[in-house]
Amino acid sequence: MSPIYDRVALIGLGLIAGSMALAMRRAGLAGEIVGTARSAETRAVAAEIGLVDRVVETAAEAAEGADLVVLAVPVGAMGAVAAEIAPHLAPGATLTDVGSVKRSVIEAVAPHVPEGVHFIPAHPLAGTEHSGPRSGFAELFDNRWSLIVPVPGTDPAATERLKRLWEGMGANVEEMDPDHHDLVLAVTSHVPHLIAYTMVGVADDLRRVTDSEVIKYSAAGFRDFTRIAASDPTMWRDVFLTNKEATLEILGRFTEELFALQRAIRTGQGDELFDYFTRTRAIRRGIIEAGQDTDAPDFGRGTKARS
Amino acid sequence: MSPIYDRVALIGLGLIAGSMALAMRRAGLAGEIVGTARSAETRAVAAEIGLVDRVVETAAEAAEGADLVVLAVPVGAMGAVAAEIAPHLAPGATLTDVGSVKRSVIEAVAPHVPEGVHFIPAHPLAGTEHSGPRSGFAELFDNRWSLIVPVPGTDPAATERLKRLWEGMGANVEEMDPDHHDLVLAVTSHVPHLIAYTMVGVADDLRRVTDSEVIKYSAAGFRDFTRIAASDPTMWRDVFLTNKEATLEILGRFTEELFALQRAIRTGQGDELFDYFTRTRAIRRGIIEAGQDTDAPDFGRGTKARS
Repeated sequence: MSPIYDRVALIGLGLIAGSMALAMRRAGLAGEIVGTARSAETRAVAAEIGLVDRVVETAAEAAEGADLVVLAVPVGAMGAVAAEIAPHLAPGATLTDVGSVKRSVIEAVAPHVPEGVHFIPAHPLAGTEHSGPRSGFAELFDNRWSLIVPVPGTDPAATERLKRLWEGMGANVEEMDPDHHDLVLAVTSHVPHLIAYTMVGVADDLRRVTDSEVIKYSAAGFRDFTRIAASDPTMWRDVFLTNKEATLEILGRFTEELFALQRAIRTGQGDELFDYFTRTRAIRRGIIEAGQDTDAPDFGRGTKARS
Repeated sequence: MSPIYDRVALIGLGLIAGSMALAMRRAGLAGEIVGTARSAETRAVAAEIGLVDRVVETAAEAAEGADLVVLAVPVGAMGAVAAEIAPHLAPGATLTDVGSVKRSVIEAVAPHVPEGVHFIPAHPLAGTEHSGPRSGFAELFDNRWSLIVPVPGTDPAATERLKRLWEGMGANVEEMDPDHHDLVLAVTSHVPHLIAYTMVGVADDLRRVTDSEVIKYSAAGFRDFTRIAASDPTMWRDVFLTNKEATLEILGRFTEELFALQRAIRTGQGDELFDYFTRTRAIRRGIIEAGQDTDAPDFGRGTKARS
């Protein structure tokens, strides 16, 4: 494939940016990939492992002369980085981001975007619980969704070009409105993460169950929660602070349901529990049929998944 | 290995009993394995696939002449099955179970156990979200824990023999007190399952986010919940009804923590969120070091796990 962009600047060199670099290289999508990160240690590791073609010291320097600039920093830092690089963006360049929240990123970044630069927010729905410059891999986006969230008046040709980049990195692409994006993600990702963090915190706090017991007997349920709750703390702090409204709305619905089930347990309403648990099985079947997970019985079965 | 028991009777032929049959056969631990299930369809499938050496119609018939009888039915059904088989248990036989709750199983089963029969409750901490006679596999217990929960006055030799069976099926064995078992499991398994069921139910209910969106964009967090929430409804109904006290206690702690985090989000206390999320990362590291999960970044990566 011939390059879609001549020079791509990655601002931030964590899991997503690192995987983008490897996926772009795999398919030859970028003439040159320039990268930078705020931390000197991250830049040094990226240079050492050859994650990008060229590591530079500042975001401004990275943006200089790039026809695609990718903001891959925690969503709370997007606005400040946009302000820093704005004077250095080339006319006709595309500025995009990979943040997990879209409304607040648009509000923070859009005011800084110069005339003639195409700002096209995006969000790849892919990740692992690992972070940092060594965590990326070229296959991260294969068969995953990347949502493009265009702001009004965006140039269709620039949007089309960014879509082709994501498709070239293996993703399926769809457009979505920012508010709807933030609500859907609150349901499918943000609130589940908060719940997992909470449950792991409870286990850690409980004095009558020692940490070693929680760790030793963590089969079946809790172990999946600990995986989720090992995700990057900075990223997730920012997600909850910037997608506050949708998170609180879904949390409200969640606790309402939880209290109803808690009441069914307390009062011994077995039929209610049985019906509820039967209904949730159907959603799982839908996900497997949609090709977004495997039916292999690997829940609680790390050893089997490895073999 | 020479057989540890001459004739093992499996009452119930679901995931756990089926896996026990295959694991016992793998290591030659039983002279003969007899099985039964309440449902005629389950018995027919078990006979068709040769899951056990002999399928019989009733629990009483299965128990007849067995030197090990395993109750592998939902915990709510243990008492009735124990009553049914009691007159048929051979003197010197061992009666065990594989229920996820121990205090209530002991209370339901112990009164029926005849003099001279060794009742030794147990609980293998292993499972998948699948159920039924086709869901078992010989490796299910490999490197997992099986907890033995002896009642006062149990014959040490009979306990030792049952331990050897579990070790022969691949499990690590430890003894635990019934009440402590029920509390530890409420933390590491029961409440996490209830939470996952609840979150999947909320997603299904939410009218502004369609089921198809929930299914399509289920990467990163929610997908693991749907796997957990696909577990057997009858089994889990009984778990919550019979481990009511510990479940409600841990749920109380969980909602307390969740409300504290919710408040931190509402009031924008980023430091509090960051500290909490950093603390939960450590538990994950402990689980990986304890060999109970892999560090491979397969969270949200069904396709990678398959390759």
